[in-house]
This record gives sequence, structure tokens and C-alpha cells, in this order.
Amino acid sequence: MLKLPGFLHGADYNPDQWLDYPEVLRQDIELMKKAHVNCVSLGIFSWARLEPSEGRYDFAWMRGIIDDLYANGVYTILATPSGAKPNWMSYRYEEIRRVGPDGRRELPGRRHNHCYTSPVYREKTAKINRKLAQEFGEHPGVILWHLSNEYGGECFCPLCVDAFRAWLREKYETLDALNHAWWSHFWSHTYTLWEQIMPPMAHGETAVHGLNLDWKRFVTRQTVGFMKSEIAALRGAGSALPVTTNLMEFHDGLNYFKFAGHLDIVSWDSYPLWHNDDEDELAVPVHTAMMHDLVRSLKNKPFLLMESTPSMTNWQPVSRLKRPGMHMLSSMQALAHGSDSVQYFQWRKSRGSSEKLHGAVVDHNGRGDTRVFADVAGLGKRLEGLSEIAGASIKSEVAILFDWENRWAIADAQGPRNMGTHYLETVQSHYRPFWEMGINADIIDMERDLSGYKLVVAPMLYLYRAGIAGKLRAFVESGGTLVGTYWSGVADESDLCFLGDRPGEGMTQVFGLRAEEIDALHDTQSNSMGYQGQTYRLTELCELVHAEGAEVLAVYDGDFYAGRPALTRNRFGQGAAYYIAARPEAAFLRALYAELADGLALRPDIAAELPYGVTVSKRAGGADRVFWFIQNFTHSPASVSLCKPLTNAETKESVTEVSLPAYGTVLLRG
Amino acid sequence: MLKLPGFLHGADYNPDQWLDYPEVLRQDIELMKKAHVNCVSLGIFSWARLEPSEGRYDFAWMRGIIDDLYANGVYTILATPSGAKPNWMSYRYEEIRRVGPDGRRELPGRRHNHCYTSPVYREKTAKINRKLAQEFGEHPGVILWHLSNEYGGECFCPLCVDAFRAWLREKYETLDALNHAWWSHFWSHTYTLWEQIMPPMAHGETAVHGLNLDWKRFVTRQTVGFMKSEIAALRGAGSALPVTTNLMEFHDGLNYFKFAGHLDIVSWDSYPLWHNDDEDELAVPVHTAMMHDLVRSLKNKPFLLMESTPSMTNWQPVSRLKRPGMHMLSSMQALAHGSDSVQYFQWRKSRGSSEKLHGAVVDHNGRGDTRVFADVAGLGKRLEGLSEIAGASIKSEVAILFDWENRWAIADAQGPRNMGTHYLETVQSHYRPFWEMGINADIIDMERDLSGYKLVVAPMLYLYRAGIAGKLRAFVESGGTLVGTYWSGVADESDLCFLGDRPGEGMTQVFGLRAEEIDALHDTQSNSMGYQGQTYRLTELCELVHAEGAEVLAVYDGDFYAGRPALTRNRFGQGAAYYIAARPEAAFLRALYAELADGLALRPDIAAELPYGVTVSKRAGGADRVFWFIQNFTHSPASVSLCKPLTNAETKESVTEVSLPAYGTVLLRG
Amino acid sequence: MLKLPGFLHGADYNPDQWLDYPEVLRQDIELMKKAHVNCVSLGIFSWARLEPSEGRYDFAWMRGIIDDLYANGVYTILATPSGAKPNWMSYRYEEIRRVGPDGRRELPGRRHNHCYTSPVYREKTAKINRKLAQEFGEHPGVILWHLSNEYGGECFCPLCVDAFRAWLREKYETLDALNHAWWSHFWSHTYTLWEQIMPPMAHGETAVHGLNLDWKRFVTRQTVGFMKSEIAALRGAGSALPVTTNLMEFHDGLNYFKFAGHLDIVSWDSYPLWHNDDEDELAVPVHTAMMHDLVRSLKNKPFLLMESTPSMTNWQPVSRLKRPGMHMLSSMQALAHGSDSVQYFQWRKSRGSSEKLHGAVVDHNGRGDTRVFADVAGLGKRLEGLSEIAGASIKSEVAILFDWENRWAIADAQGPRNMGTHYLETVQSHYRPFWEMGINADIIDMERDLSGYKLVVAPMLYLYRAGIAGKLRAFVESGGTLVGTYWSGVADESDLCFLGDRPGEGMTQVFGLRAEEIDALHDTQSNSMGYQGQTYRLTELCELVHAEGAEVLAVYDGDFYAGRPALTRNRFGQGAAYYIAARPEAAFLRALYAELADGLALRPDIAAELPYGVTVSKRAGGADRVFWFIQNFTHSPASVSLCKPLTNAETKESVTEVSLPAYGTVLLRG
Repeated sequence: MLKLPGFLHGADYNPDQWLDYPEVLRQDIELMKKAHVNCVSLGIFSWARLEPSEGRYDFAWMRGIIDDLYANGVYTILATPSGAKPNWMSYRYEEIRRVGPDGRRELPGRRHNHCYTSPVYREKTAKINRKLAQEFGEHPGVILWHLSNEYGGECFCPLCVDAFRAWLREKYETLDALNHAWWSHFWSHTYTLWEQIMPPMAHGETAVHGLNLDWKRFVTRQTVGFMKSEIAALRGAGSALPVTTNLMEFHDGLNYFKFAGHLDIVSWDSYPLWHNDDEDELAVPVHTAMMHDLVRSLKNKPFLLMESTPSMTNWQPVSRLKRPGMHMLSSMQALAHGSDSVQYFQWRKSRGSSEKLHGAVVDHNGRGDTRVFADVAGLGKRLEGLSEIAGASIKSEVAILFDWENRWAIADAQGPRNMGTHYLETVQSHYRPFWEMGINADIIDMERDLSGYKLVVAPMLYLYRAGIAGKLRAFVESGGTLVGTYWSGVADESDLCFLGDRPGEGMTQVFGLRAEEIDALHDTQSNSMGYQGQTYRLTELCELVHAEGAEVLAVYDGDFYAGRPALTRNRFGQGAAYYIAARPEAAFLRALYAELADGLALRPDIAAELPYGVTVSKRAGGADRVFWFIQNFTHSPASVSLCKPLTNAETKESVTEVSLPAYGTVLLRG
Repeated sequence: MLKLPGFLHGADYNPDQWLDYPEVLRQDIELMKKAHVNCVSLGIFSWARLEPSEGRYDFAWMRGIIDDLYANGVYTILATPSGAKPNWMSYRYEEIRRVGPDGRRELPGRRHNHCYTSPVYREKTAKINRKLAQEFGEHPGVILWHLSNEYGGECFCPLCVDAFRAWLREKYETLDALNHAWWSHFWSHTYTLWEQIMPPMAHGETAVHGLNLDWKRFVTRQTVGFMKSEIAALRGAGSALPVTTNLMEFHDGLNYFKFAGHLDIVSWDSYPLWHNDDEDELAVPVHTAMMHDLVRSLKNKPFLLMESTPSMTNWQPVSRLKRPGMHMLSSMQALAHGSDSVQYFQWRKSRGSSEKLHGAVVDHNGRGDTRVFADVAGLGKRLEGLSEIAGASIKSEVAILFDWENRWAIADAQGPRNMGTHYLETVQSHYRPFWEMGINADIIDMERDLSGYKLVVAPMLYLYRAGIAGKLRAFVESGGTLVGTYWSGVADESDLCFLGDRPGEGMTQVFGLRAEEIDALHDTQSNSMGYQGQTYRLTELCELVHAEGAEVLAVYDGDFYAGRPALTRNRFGQGAAYYIAARPEAAFLRALYAELADGLALRPDIAAELPYGVTVSKRAGGADRVFWFIQNFTHSPASVSLCKPLTNAETKESVTEVSLPAYGTVLLRG
Repeated sequence: MLKLPGFLHGADYNPDQWLDYPEVLRQDIELMKKAHVNCVSLGIFSWARLEPSEGRYDFAWMRGIIDDLYANGVYTILATPSGAKPNWMSYRYEEIRRVGPDGRRELPGRRHNHCYTSPVYREKTAKINRKLAQEFGEHPGVILWHLSNEYGGECFCPLCVDAFRAWLREKYETLDALNHAWWSHFWSHTYTLWEQIMPPMAHGETAVHGLNLDWKRFVTRQTVGFMKSEIAALRGAGSALPVTTNLMEFHDGLNYFKFAGHLDIVSWDSYPLWHNDDEDELAVPVHTAMMHDLVRSLKNKPFLLMESTPSMTNWQPVSRLKRPGMHMLSSMQALAHGSDSVQYFQWRKSRGSSEKLHGAVVDHNGRGDTRVFADVAGLGKRLEGLSEIAGASIKSEVAILFDWENRWAIADAQGPRNMGTHYLETVQSHYRPFWEMGINADIIDMERDLSGYKLVVAPMLYLYRAGIAGKLRAFVESGGTLVGTYWSGVADESDLCFLGDRPGEGMTQVFGLRAEEIDALHDTQSNSMGYQGQTYRLTELCELVHAEGAEVLAVYDGDFYAGRPALTRNRFGQGAAYYIAARPEAAFLRALYAELADGLALRPDIAAELPYGVTVSKRAGGADRVFWFIQNFTHSPASVSLCKPLTNAETKESVTEVSLPAYGTVLLRG
């Protein structure tokens, strides 16, 4: 899809802050070549340079930069500049500034904080986007549109409030329907005029879950709407270049699944907290791998790593340097999970202001002989040798459900455990065994098709929407294996509890059980269950279920519900549905999924067993382009015995045993 | 006083949220019968259903419900609906919405948040109350008015500010008097116009203790005023039914003693954190018992338990299920301390919105065969067999002073220990030994009469008001025993420090000592004293006193004040006054009060000794209706040897030894 | 300079709150005599008494007080009353009330919260100051002006915003210059109109470090400007009395070095947290000693201890009583470091309001026989015997750089360790070894002259300004010894990073090294280095430097940078520059500075070695007035062997061995 074959390697490039330093700009080109950079992201925060005052444009400097880069073999990903409003615009047009949940409008300043509804801002953005498309849309060096930057946040201004009401009107048609969906007759919250509806603001109504959920849906819708208007402007000006926008890690505020359909390519900004003080050194790589898989699953095709740091960030509580090897490892991890790029924020450290101490390829000293620069250049060189892999895809037999609306509803619920039910962490705990076994997994939401998977894992599916119950039923009926857990099937898409037994919408039949109560535990409390000779700790939430057809595989050991089912399996149609009634420790999930992996033949076909901290990911671009990434995330060497001889994709040697140094990556080819 | 003899058993019933679900309403009646429910609280949040738009009323649905219930043997406690404003009203009349301490008016939404001063809201409330009285005041099924719901909170709107100034003018008459009382000449805070006075708002004057204290007094006064206007409307419409309002646990914002005189019956909502992670399993039952005793003491007669949960709450950090037996135990505890009811919030779980996950008698599944339902029905049946006890009273020989104004003043003080002086916890620590010995105690404030008690316990009586020094002096003089502590008699009712020796107002004579300094300790620091062969830990505050006539019973062991008095006793008139100069550990209070209980013959006359976790409470409705509740709050069985044979009130057997299962309650009859 | 010879001993005296209590005022005079008080600070919060309504003045009561005091031998330090606005003024003139960072104007109330820009407030203050000068400027009992009280805080009102913009315009002249200094082209923050500039408010621009730093500079400038206008009014009315203002402990908000030039005498309010729960009992005395030294260094001459508490404060989390001996010790410590006074807040405890529980010389009981009163009187008597010391100065050979602008810039930085880089604590850790060795040290900022020092210690000199690099270079070149550390020479005075190697401005040559990266550590992580047979722990920040000429004295033991320099020394010109690349534990600094003290002959000439917790300070008023304060800050006795016989300044005995009781102070004379 991109003009540029092979992997992209480059950085956010912000020469607009160095226009008074021509020697710096000259040096940049030389250093980029030395670093094997083939691409930069340009213009992300350039609006004030492109339109220094209202209606007066200056594209000359940018053209000079793009030309120079292109002449030196560096392609440009060109940003639309809406991520940062020029001060003159914020000053002149109050409406483009956000109003916070406290009802106060922001003063000019910061970034990523424009009102998504404002007609003025949409128009100004459309205009600059059109200009950019006209100026650079056909430039041979420009390969991709980078829409804005890290969309996010909410606005409670009168324009947004009006748009919210209009959307609700469209959705519910009548106030009766809305009042029922929001269950607003309770507490006399009945709305009798659309004008009475306000978003959940700090000094207003925050206790109506249906309202809260609809507001979050609206925020995603409005943000996507803004993004669509940006795309429309580019297309309207004749640009046919693909578009992307850079997403953020498990960002709570926006449902990224709603963005994917409008983008040609998905990309994201990855800033893992490597080398932090977590005793579990694998927590960060697993967390990051899952986000890579989520991003890949958004369009089920390769994505771009749009930002990462070659060194340290400046926003973490403690800015640790990347240890030797970590830059290579973390970059190769992105590729292993489907990225076709490694890019950085930013090329050169700013001289002043907020991001001046954020890691960059080039430091304030302007040197090309630093440790960080050498790491970057070494990776760039290696990527050049791996260009055949770019574009290869990943096929998963396992799907893990992670649904933003479910996430919002669980977090907003009052009870059963306000100090934390840990939805995201729980989904991650189910993901980890697959990472440990080197089994590729997709991360999907309830709107996705389940066919084609052998195993679907659906933890804490509190809110059923998008026909998920029907899809799960059909999936199991036709032979699929489903793993569900406690706190599932509680509410419908309006967050109204199902009347009748739980899990709702007939899922009692699929699981062969019904849930009656759920007990919440303090952090110091636990229960346990025995399964296949081992005892496993259970914490946080213990559901009390009645097996009605399901086979009881494990029971609670303690408390007044000792002896009642803690783990069940129900044969249903051609398939089977497991139900885990409480939150288990990691070891249990490791054991259960190992059993399922063996039963369903999910393990990678190259190695029967992986040592601690080593994982495998497979990318294939057809039968002749099959690659395995074998990565060691520990700081000790490790080795993997292969089931069959394979070729080292870089040395071309045939191997049956793979030796990995600490933080090492080996690429095999089938 | 109520039409209905025996104990009330029932729940908040909110059919207004189910009017579109007729099958649910039909099922409710059947399930109520099965649960031995004889009474419900109706209409608490119904305003939007009763007056769907301004001036348009609809009582038909409510009449249908009340009729149906009555026809099926279920009585109605009818609420005035002021606890939740209809959205149309909040939208139309800005003045009824509160202004917060930050000066911002709330948006429409939530509940319990109307301005107590607003003439509009008072008028609207009066009108609906009159209508309700006219419609249902004479209905044979209606037995009691439930005024609003959980009154609370503050409002800083211009109407309230004006009312505050008017009240101050009435109280002080001149600004000179106010300036002296508030000591406002210091820091140039002198007020020269009444209009200069503002409540203690976040961005204003918060450092003037006299102002803060008067504001809290005003908030109670204004809330009581609102409640009185509600009652007046009901009475004005001809209803002679008794009135109550449901109070909350040790609610800091309102002085409940000021409410009692205006209510016919006192009631409260009890939500103890049963089964929490406190290592001390008796902390919750003792805390709850004291609140029951406080509520009973408000009018010194039986009260109603208006709300409790049969299962879990949804607002605690961790929503624990009630363990088997706990529902019976906690309900019987209320009776033991003077309740004539056990009622729940709510009958049936809401389908949506904020309280949908709060425990209820009937779950979303609509089943009558759940564990929770069985617990409720079992209790209902047992209550029917105990109806003779209803109305029986409790007579205490011990009074413990707990005074809201003192609580406010101590908490607002700057120094001597801003990280916590723990007034409420300290009073509770003095209450606990009596609970452990099975000795009934009243919880009273400084305005109450002390005659009739043998022992008065007055911890941390920092602020003297309502002639308390004179009353205490007279009480001791005429033979009473008083226990006082450090940090007493510091300030007068304006929170002006007494000039001269401390404790003020002549209490140095009663205690036979004067206090010179008070030392505050960090949490890691402590002192100790020896008393009767034991050493006891002293923490938080250690007062340095000079014995001037008092007998020194114990001295400090450590620090530069080692050897100075830590515990004294002064014979004064016919009585004695003890003074505890520092905060002692629980074991000391247990020892001291055991000694006093023996000396003053306070122990229950049925058992010399009670095992750990077992307590006794006595209710009597005349010489022929004497009952003892013996309750075991541990999760192990226990037994109690009686001094004399008594009759088990339920089995009618004569017993000399009472065997209690875990969480068990046995009722004896004299 | 003051009319009164010898040491001042007295207190803030607030009779304005007792004008209705004539017997209290009479008693005060008697008690002052008993307490050996020779001076009070008067009128600090008296505005409402001096000008009860606009333009109506009343000085009669104050004249009576001053006359009475003077007649009884007590002198008056007279305050200008601007610290607390009268309520009538706040009510009538909105503009004098501050606007917070949230954009909201305060309501009337509290204190120290007037707008420093307001023309109205400046005019009202000037007027009352002139009146005071006219009334009392020539009074023989008045010796010093006490300007306002504890200046501090910020105001964001439109008047201040305008003044800020005007100041920026004066400073930068063009927006181009400002945009470059603030690096505002990044993130499109370019300012195109001066009117677009707003201070860093909570709902506005907070991410531009240059703006933040200039705002803090402006706040200091504006506060100093207000103070100057106060002085001008006094001088304009003909008063030639010296002026002071009372500073606060390491106050973050104001750069006190900018105040010194405008004051005749520097004074401060010292409230150490004596007897807290810190395991290190010397932390508080060292911290306090350093602040005394900082205050003395502001004008490099004796200062006044304007406030302290004879007992406890009322604002600490835990108000501990001063243990026996501590009042003497802490008071003598002030003298040891250059104070010519010991004064208290306040003379008598207020009867009501916010400070009623703050320790005072006279308690509510009005007694002169309390422990606290005895401590005060004992000190007063001792001071009378030491009057010869008053006015003697302190000469330091060691300077420690502590620069407010550097402090602000480090704290505001994003990265490298947002959870804390601990600038102040780090400077204190470098100060402590000198305290332990009894070596006097000056605390200076970057604007000061370095000549005359043998040793300059400059920890974490992140921001270079005021030509500091040139001064340090010249200092070393001409034979001085410099100790620098990691995180130095990063940015210029605009907080723009130096381009080229770090430390910038040529300091790489002085230190003989360049820094490439800096690694931040979590609190649980550490590295270490060996130096002269000992291993020392390194935490928080570890810089990776390249020695380029410097001698490597120690290297990192661990992590990927093991073996790289951790401590270096570079001979440069006639001097030497040490560089400590990571944050070391206290023991290392003790060892290093002991070595330097010996090499540079810095130790006190009276004792070779001091026991733990004992320190020495030397004051000299010429060759014949040389005094050593020897103080023991532990709660055990200690003794010090002298190098030569000296005279005990109080007993007049010749001693060669000094025995110090716990908390004891001995004064020697040379």
C-alpha cells in the first residue's frame, strides 16, 4: 500500500523548531543517512509555522525540507497539524477550546485539546488539510497522511452538549425510550425535555450509568467524526494517499475499534516502561505484545509502530535508559507482532519546552557517536536485511475478547468491588499463557466475527452487545471452544440488567449453569480450588453458581460456599464452554490453556516447549515467506530446541537449536 | 403508636420503576407474602411519577399499589418525595439546586441535593406533601410518614447566605458581640457590616473557628427547619399519622439531637461493613451497637431500623456477601438495642442505574428460592413469634456523652494533633467495655439531663456548652461517678478558650487537678502507665496535669513527664470524678470499667461473666415483659452460664446455661 | 544599627485582640519583665484596629501600648499592617483580593493574600505606612520596621497578568525573542500578540518551562516591588529607621536573594519540627542550621530570629512539646549561626480563632509559673550575660550554591526523574558534613561573588545563569576547589539546553569530562562505587560521563555502565574541580569533605575532632571578640577536647575539655 517497500525506519521530525538553525538542518540529513533512516513524520505540530497568521500560509520551508529529504532517500509521512492549535487561533476563536467536566473553558495552550465539534475548528482544519494535500499530495517523497496526533479527550462545551442531545434523539427517538434505557424513573431522574439532558459533568449527574455509557460512545463517535472530516478534506483536495492516525496504549477514552474502518493503516505510539521496578520482568513485554496484537487485529493486517523512544521518555515517574540490547529487542517485538515499521519520537531533542528531555535519536550535543545513536543505526541496518518480511501477515486460531464498551460499563458500575475489578488486567492475564506458549492471538471486540477461530476467550463479559451471545452460542454449537468467566452476561447494551438467570440471553444453556450471587474479597482475602492435583488461589470476585448440566471440574475449597463449582465445562453442540467462576492466579490459567492448546493443537509447529521468557511469533506472506521471530525477554541467555531444522533468516544457516543471548532475537525462515 | 402491632418487617418498595412491568408487580405481592413481609416504605423517589409535569398530579398508580398491598396484609410507610427533585423542576427553578463550597451551582441530577432554604422548593414540597396527606392520610393501610430521605449536605447559595446572616443577627444582635465570639479582631478579621459575612467557602474564610462552628449549627438548624415545614404541610392537610425520618450512621454533617424533638419516631439506615478485613472482628458489631443505642437515646424509646441490606451493598470498596447467619444476627442486634423493625433497602433490585447492584430481597432473576430470600423469609417468620417484645424499652444506668458540636469543634481545631485526635473513635473505645460486659448504655449529648444515671463517661469534652460543667458538678456532688479525660474544658460554646486553669468552669475542683500542657505523639511513639499490676500503653495525646486534691492512681512511666499523674480520682461531694490524662489502650478501659461496674453494680443480673464476643441486652415492657437478647458475634460457638434459671422466650424451656451457635441469638424471658 | 545594644529577646505582641481586657494588658507588662523580654513586634495584624473604617484612623491605643512598654524597658519593632487586609477593605475593593491559578477571585478572609499589583492596595498600604511613620517613627521606643508579614503567594488577576506582560515586553522587547527563549515554535505555541500570553494557570498553559520560570521570576519581582513601595512610604514620611521583613524556611515561592538588597536587616521565622519521628535525630538541626546560614548569607551579616515557638506549633501534623533543654538549645543555635535575637510568636495565646492553640510565652491561664515560661525567662536571663556577642560576624571559607531559579527549573522539568530529583535535599546533604565538622559555610546563589572562598560546592547546577560558568572557571583557575555533580550545565538561563557537550559553557574543560546520558533509578534500585577502600551506595540519578582529561577516582560497580567514571578530579589552572556523577549516600560526602577539609585547612582551629551530634560555630567581632558556640544536639552528654586552652565565656574558667550535657551549649572565648 505504501510507495516504500520494506520496513520503514525513522522518526518524528520537527525542523519547524530549528528553522533559525540552518546548520542543524544540514547536519540532520547527514545523520539520518548514518542512522539508516528512510522515512520521517513531518509537520505534526507545525500549524503555527504553516499558517503564521489567519489565512496567511507559508509552505516554502516545508517544501524545502521534503525536497531535501527526498533527494537524500528519506520519505515523508505528512501530518495534518490539528493536534496543536496555533495560539492566534485559540485566542481569536474561543469555541475551539475545550470545556472541562467542571464547566470551565480552557485558556489557550497545551495540545490535543481542541473541541471536536466546533464548526470553526473543523473548517480551519479542513482548510489547512486541503492546502497540504494540494501542496504535497503529489510529491513523490510523501507516502502517507498522519492524521492529527494522538486523538483523545472530551469536551463539554455547549456545542458538544447540543451534538450529544441530537445524537441521543437520533438514537432513541423518544424520551420514553431514553428514560427506559437509562432507567431514569428511579430517583425521579425522568427527562421530560431533551434540553434537560447534560453530559456527566463533575457538578451534575454522574450516577446514571446509561448516560455515562452513552456519553463515552458519543465521545468516540464525535472524535471519529472529526477524523472523518479531516480525511474528507484530504480526499476532497484530490489526495489518494493512504491515511493513518497514531493510537495510544490501551487508551481508555476512545473505542479504537470504531476508528479502524476509516483508516487505511493503523499505527500506534509505544512507550513501555522497560526496566521498571516490577518484580515480574515479563509483565512489560506481555503487556506490550498484547497491545501490538490489538492494533494488528483492528484491521487484521500489518500496522506501523509510529512512535517509540530510542532512549528514555521524559514523562514516566523514573526515566530509565534503555539497557544495551533493549532497543533492538523492543523494536523486533513490534515486527514480530505485525509492525512494518520502527519509528521514533523524535529525531532530535528539542532545545526547550516540555519535551526537551525526552529521548531522541540525536541529543543536544548533535553527536552521531553516542550509544543511543549507535543502537538506532544498528537496528536500521538490520531492518534493511529483513525487508522481505514487511507486509507478511499473522493468522491466529485464538481470539481474546476485549471490548471497550464492556470496559467502560464495568469501570462505571457501583459494585461489586469498587476498589477494583481489573478488567484490562484480567484480559491480559488470559492473554499471557498464549504469549508464553508462542501462540499468536487476536484481540477483538464483540462486533467481530468469531468464525475461523478454534478458541475464543471472553473474560468478564459483563455487558452483552452486538449479538455476542448469539455469536458465542453459534461458535460453540459448531465446534468452537469458549472460555468464559464470572461476572458475565449481567447487563444488556443499555447496561440494564437481564431479568431472569445469569449469564443472560440464553448463555446459561451454553455454559450449563446459572449464577446466583457474587462475593467480593478484600485484597488480603482469598479462596482456592484444586484442579488436576494442584491448588490455585482465587481472589477478588467469587461467583456462586449452580451447575445445571455442566461438568464440575473444580470446586471452592473454602468459605461458606466450599464445595460449590469454581470451574465447569459444558459440552454444547459440537463444542465446549468452560466457565471460571472466580479470579484465578496466573498458574491456573497457564495450566488450563496448556491443556486446551494441546487438545486443540494450537502450539507453534516449530518448538514443543519454550523456556521462561522466550516467545515465538509467526508472520507469513504466503507459503514461501514464512518467518518465525524467536525472542528472549530475559537478561540471561536461553536456547530453544526446534522440532525440525529451519533456516536462520539472517545468517542463512540451518539450525535445530536456537541460541539466544540476553534480550536476543533470532529470525527463522520456513 | 403505630397501627400495626408487633415488629415491622419489610423494605423500601419502588414500584414506580416497574410500572411498565405489570408481571413484576404481581409477582411482588406473592413474594412478599412468602417472605413474611408486613410493611413497605413507598414513594421515596416517586416525585417524577406523582407530579410528572408542573402541577399535573398522578396518584392513581400509587393508590393501586397501596390498595393491593393492604389487601394482601402489607402496610405502607409513605414517604414525602423531597429526597429527589424531578428533573423538570431542577431545570426550571435554578434556585432549588445547591451551590457548593466552591461557589458553583450544581447542574440538575443526583439526589439529596436541594437547597434547604429555597422558598420555591419549600413550597413545592409543601404542596406535594399536602396532596399526599389528602390522598392517603386516611388510608387504613398507611401507618407512618417517612419524611424525605437521608437529609444531609450543605448549600452556599445566596438564599442560604442571607439566611445565615439573618440567623447570626438574631443570635448575636450586634457585630461587637459576634466579633468577640469569633475573636475576629485577630488577623484584622473584624466585621463591620453583616453583609461582609460569608460562610466558610473553599476560596474564602476558613480559618475562623467560631464562624465554622456557627455555620455547622446553622446547617442543622436550616435542615431541621426544612423538615419542620414538611411536617407542617402534612399536619396542615389534616394528617395525624406519626412522622419519622431515616438518619445515617454517625453522620458528621447534622446534629441529630436537634431532630429528635420534632419526630414521633426515630429511624435509621444501618449498613455495617460486616466481614471486612479488620483483624478485630468485634469492631463492626460494637460500632453498630453504639449507633443503635444513640438512635434509641435520641428519644429514649424504641426506634425503627428503616433500611438495611439482606445481602451486600454496592457502595463499599468491597461488596461482601452476608455470611450464613449474619442476616439473622444483625437484624436481631437491632431489636436487642431497641428497634421495633427490620426493614431493607430495597425490595427488588433496580434493573438499571446507580443502585442496580445493591443487594435486595428479590434479585434480577425474580426468584423466591435464593439464599438471600430464604434468609429474609426465615427472619420474617421468627419475628412473628416475637411480637410481644415490640415496644419494650431499655433502661440504662450508664450515659456516654457524645456531642456533635464538640465533635465539630475538635475536628476543626488547629492543633494539638492535626493528623487526628479521633473523637468518635475515642468515645467508641469507652463504649466498648460496656458492650462487652452486657451493660446497656445511653449515648447522650450535653443538653441532656444527667440525673438517673449512676455513671457518666465524658471523653474529650473539649467544648463546654449547655451548662454541662454545672450539670457534671451537680451529678458528682450528689453521688454520681464521672469519668473524664485529657483535652476537656478547653473552650466555651463560642470556641473561646477559658481564661484561667483548665478544665474550665470550675471543673478543676471537680477533678481535683489542673492541666498545664498537652503533648502530642506521632503514631510510632507511645508512653505507658502502670495500674493495678498491669502496664498500659498511652498514645496520641498525653496531658501534663497537676494534681490539686485528686488521688493519683497511675503515673506516666516515660518521657520528661515520667512520674506525673496519668490517672486520678477525686472524691467530690457524694461522688467521684476520674480523670484519664492520656489516650489509653482498650485493655485499660476494660479494666477500669470492670472495676466501676462492680463497684456500682452495673452488670446484667443474669450472668456474672460473658465470653469473648458475646453480649447481652435487656428490653422490658413492664415487670412481666422482661427480655434478654444474648448474642454471639463470633464465628465459633459459645456458651453462657446464667445466675438463675430463665425461660427461653422461643422454645419456652427453662435454662441455666445458654448455648449459642456461631452468629447465634438466644432470647430469654424473665 | 539598632538603637538597642545586645541581643533582642521578645515576641510578637498582639494586644489589639485584648483591648477589652485591660487586666490582661496590665499583667503582660509584669510578665514581660519577669521573662527578661526587652522587645516586642507590634501591629502585625492591626490594620482593622488602626483604620476601623475607611479613612478613619485610631492610633491612640497603639501609642498607649508603645509608651507603656517603653516605660517598662521594652522596645518596639513596629509592623506595617499589610499582611492582613481589613474585612471592610476586601469587601469594598474587589481588586485587592487575589485570583487563584484556577481563575477565581478569593472571597474576603484569611491573610497574606492581597494582590501585590493592585494600585488600590498599594495606595492604602502606603497611606497607613505613612501614618505609622508620622505617628511613631520618632518614638524613642520604636527601633525597627517590620514590613508586612511572611510575604508569599501568587495572584493571577487581570492586573497581575497585565503587569506580567509589561515585564516580559521590557525583558524580551520582541515576541521573536520571547518565542525563541520559550522555544514556543514547538507544539505551535508561537505567540503573535503580547495579549495572548497568560500566566501558567491550571486550566491553561502549564507545559512551557520558559513561561513557568519567567512567571516565578515575575512573582518575586512583583513582591519585591510591593515591598519597595512599602519602604518608600515609610521613607517618604521621614522615617530613617532600619527595615526588615520576616522570611520563611526555604520558601519555594520567592527568591529571597532578590529581597536582601532592599532590607537593612534580614530576619526569619523558624519553626523546626523538633522531636519528630525521623530516625535521624540530626536531620532537623542540620536543616535549621543551613537555613540560619542562608539567611545570614543574604546580607553576609547578623540577622534576627523574628519568630520561633517557646512551646509547640499548632500547624504541624503532630504538635510536640519542646523537651526540657530544647528551647535553650534551639535559641542558642540561632545565635551560633549569626542571629542577634530570639523572638517568639506570640507573647500570649489568642483566646479564639486559628492560632489559639499555637504555643506562646503566656498560656490562657495567664500564669508566670509554667514550664514554658520558665524556659523563656531562663533564656532571657542568659542572653543578658552574652550581650557582647551581639553584632559579631561569621567568616566562611566554604560556599555552597543554592539558587532559587535553578531550584524552580529543576522542579519544573519533565524528566529525568519526575518522582523526585531532590534538589534542596541534595544541597543539604552537601552542607551536612561541614556542620558535622564544625566548619562555617555560606549559602549563596549564582549571582554572588566567589572570591574569598577556598571551596565552592555546587550540586546539581542544572541551569547556568548570571555568568556562573565563567565565575566557576575563574575561581578554579585561580586556585579554588570546586565540587560539582551530575545534572549540571544542562540549560541556560532561559532553560534552553546547551547545544554541544554538557556541562555547557565550557565547563567540560573545567571538569575535564563530558556527560552523555543520565540514568534514573527507582527508589528500590541502586548502584555503588568504591572509594579509598569503602563502597558507597549511589541512587536516583547516575550520569554516564566520558573522562576527557579528568582523573577517575571511582567508577560504577554495577549495571551496564560498570567501570565508567563515578567520581573524577581535574586539575585546572591553579585549582581543582571534582565531579560526582551520581547521588551518593551521606557517608561518601562525609569522607570526601573530610579529605578536602584537611587538604584545605578548613576545620575549626579549636578542636580536631567532634563527637556525633556536636557542632561548633564561630562568631567574631574583631580579634578581641572571638566566640565559639559548642552545641550538643543529642539527648546524651558529650565532651570535646580542645586543641588549646580557652575561656568559658560565661563562667570565665579556662578549659581544655568541654563537657556538654544533653542538648547543652557551651560558649568559649578566644
